[in-house]
Amino acid sequence: MFTVYAIDEAKRLIRENFTSFTPHIETVSILNSVNRFLAIDIYANAAVPHFNRSTVDGYAIKTSDVKGACDTLPSSLFIVGEVIMGQPYNKPLSTGEAIYVPTGGVLPQGADAVVMIEDTEVLNKNELFVYKKLAPKENVLFIGEDIKEDTIVLNKGHQIKAQDLGLLTAIGYTDVKVFKKIRFTVISTGDEIIHPNKAPRIGEIRDINTYTISGIIEERNHALVDIHVIKDNEYLLKEVMEKSIEKSDVVVISGGSSVGERDLTTKILNEIETDSVFVHGIAMKPGKPTVFAKVKDKLVFGLPGQPASAFMVFQTFISHIESVLLGKEKSLLFYIEATLAKNVHSTPGRETYQMVKVIEKKEGYLAEPIYGKSGTMSLITEADGFIIIPVQKEGIQRNEKVKVYKL
Amino acid sequence: MFTVYAIDEAKRLIRENFTSFTPHIETVSILNSVNRFLAIDIYANAAVPHFNRSTVDGYAIKTSDVKGACDTLPSSLFIVGEVIMGQPYNKPLSTGEAIYVPTGGVLPQGADAVVMIEDTEVLNKNELFVYKKLAPKENVLFIGEDIKEDTIVLNKGHQIKAQDLGLLTAIGYTDVKVFKKIRFTVISTGDEIIHPNKAPRIGEIRDINTYTISGIIEERNHALVDIHVIKDNEYLLKEVMEKSIEKSDVVVISGGSSVGERDLTTKILNEIETDSVFVHGIAMKPGKPTVFAKVKDKLVFGLPGQPASAFMVFQTFISHIESVLLGKEKSLLFYIEATLAKNVHSTPGRETYQMVKVIEKKEGYLAEPIYGKSGTMSLITEADGFIIIPVQKEGIQRNEKVKVYKL
Repeated sequence: MFTVYAIDEAKRLIRENFTSFTPHIETVSILNSVNRFLAIDIYANAAVPHFNRSTVDGYAIKTSDVKGACDTLPSSLFIVGEVIMGQPYNKPLSTGEAIYVPTGGVLPQGADAVVMIEDTEVLNKNELFVYKKLAPKENVLFIGEDIKEDTIVLNKGHQIKAQDLGLLTAIGYTDVKVFKKIRFTVISTGDEIIHPNKAPRIGEIRDINTYTISGIIEERNHALVDIHVIKDNEYLLKEVMEKSIEKSDVVVISGGSSVGERDLTTKILNEIETDSVFVHGIAMKPGKPTVFAKVKDKLVFGLPGQPASAFMVFQTFISHIESVLLGKEKSLLFYIEATLAKNVHSTPGRETYQMVKVIEKKEGYLAEPIYGKSGTMSLITEADGFIIIPVQKEGIQRNEKVKVYKL
Repeated sequence: MFTVYAIDEAKRLIRENFTSFTPHIETVSILNSVNRFLAIDIYANAAVPHFNRSTVDGYAIKTSDVKGACDTLPSSLFIVGEVIMGQPYNKPLSTGEAIYVPTGGVLPQGADAVVMIEDTEVLNKNELFVYKKLAPKENVLFIGEDIKEDTIVLNKGHQIKAQDLGLLTAIGYTDVKVFKKIRFTVISTGDEIIHPNKAPRIGEIRDINTYTISGIIEERNHALVDIHVIKDNEYLLKEVMEKSIEKSDVVVISGGSSVGERDLTTKILNEIETDSVFVHGIAMKPGKPTVFAKVKDKLVFGLPGQPASAFMVFQTFISHIESVLLGKEKSLLFYIEATLAKNVHSTPGRETYQMVKVIEKKEGYLAEPIYGKSGTMSLITEADGFIIIPVQKEGIQRNEKVKVYKL
């Protein structure tokens, strides 16, 4: 019925069609920046630390003064002062001297290491016995050792994590330029679909897709502009689609599940802009009837009607869409290695996504495939994750090791 | 200096001290419920689907009518009607009859399966050739096959995921009772700590911990009530602590890094309420000087001053705190299996958390340990994840397989 694209080929086409997309930029407080994408490279305009700091409670010394120190034969030094936390220390240290420094305190000039308090003994108030020899630089964090001045510390497109906030504040950023959130509109179509707060009559079902897809959008911290549930009416669908395209960066439509309805979506998209549909059908199971279109420079993402399929297809492509639209760096996929509990069959020629439950056993994790008839929601809510069966394979045997990815 | 608790023992003590914590409940729209924790068990008060639904485009039939059907010898049936999407169908199907049903449409009474349109041929407008025999129930989702009526579909304490929104709407929930967010106040202490928007003089450094910890709180969708940066002044610290305890469920204080300051925190906590500190020191590296206290029924969580240590300790315990305070279910830990690139040493008797960078090689993933002097921030911002070296081990050798957990 239509050409089916491999997932990677579909991803390539999305990138090709949206290379020129330029997201808008806004400035946000770093406390609101988690999960946002950096709009600029972040330069360190100062070294961190910007003074030599002790990493222990102890005494600043010259290592040349304690060369022979050991448990039985301590070196003897004179305590000539004390560094106060948060304050500079202006008197340089001379040979034979020691200065008390708390963790984080300034290393006085002339000192090249700090001996830990545990390795010393104070006699007569200002005589210090040092029971350990030290290498130069020991227990000191030198200027720029954490962050070098004039280096890029975070790249444009980087998705800000909690730990990055510390990096940013260390170099003086309290707000940061990020790309505006991707604006999504989510549409569900189907004559049988009703709003969840209504009681469905025979033949009707409550809307599911709008909410699972919106859930992913919320989870990933994008902007949900609007949601619509509409009947399969060509005029109405075209009107809502045009308005949604105007107000959003990405319009997600989970088409009705019947063939006729799916065709309606692509027909309307191609009517709004000729040849706008550039992918119609992908080699993914579930998810074959997936559509990608570029309509008035906006991405329209047509999902299958089946809830589990719509969910999996959206999950599979959302990270790539972030990468294309906001320059997101490639991220690592974490997994759980498990033993497959039952044979799983797949359709060669399609990448198969099989939902599994992960059960912890004494001997390791077991992945129990979850089978649900097409169209069930519980298939994905009961699953802990999914396994991927590559295009060329016909299935995976029981007892084989599989990687379970987070759903 | 103080008794050091194993991580599991510290977790047990937190649970023991806060068993009686009862979070408040609020009702939120399901569109705002992602990552929140359910305050009640969710019952399905209706079956899903609530009518027998076709899962394909095809013809509703009686399987007894197509018992002998095959490619060369089709069964012949009469098409007597068509199910309209979203509408009931009231005429029962009799022997020898077929009724067109779209995907998602109602299965007419009397039919026990749906033959896919691809396996049929229509002759003379209303004669149907069926080229395939079917098993009863084929291509039909029966009442309650997705969600059974009167069953618990999600448990109290469950953290709501995107896919759960679909489960909730399917059974008619558009808003949901969740526990109120955990209210956190984050305090950084230290005479050397200044606000990040100030230029640090020699001896001073910009506040890091408040922001990394707040970042985790934001990331995990809890409530950040307030943040404070204060000097090591006993009177001031006590005042801020008392106010923070009043306004929050959890107060996180990243103590100054020197021994004196750490002791000040525990001294003040025990002053506000006698014997309130129940853990002072954990067998974790980094993170030894970690404090847990129950002060006026609130959890006070004292972190080490070193940024990387504070971050790791908070990350290690936050999920447990969610479990204790909101009843969060145990969650699976996803990882990446990698080959360790260099030997990593650890201190027996302490669970060691080693930061690593993950590098993708042809032969698999490589985990490169990141060493930074104590107190560096870049240690955790450059890392992709961490490996855990168990208490009893002295280290892990190069080329050993390790599990890298997400940071």
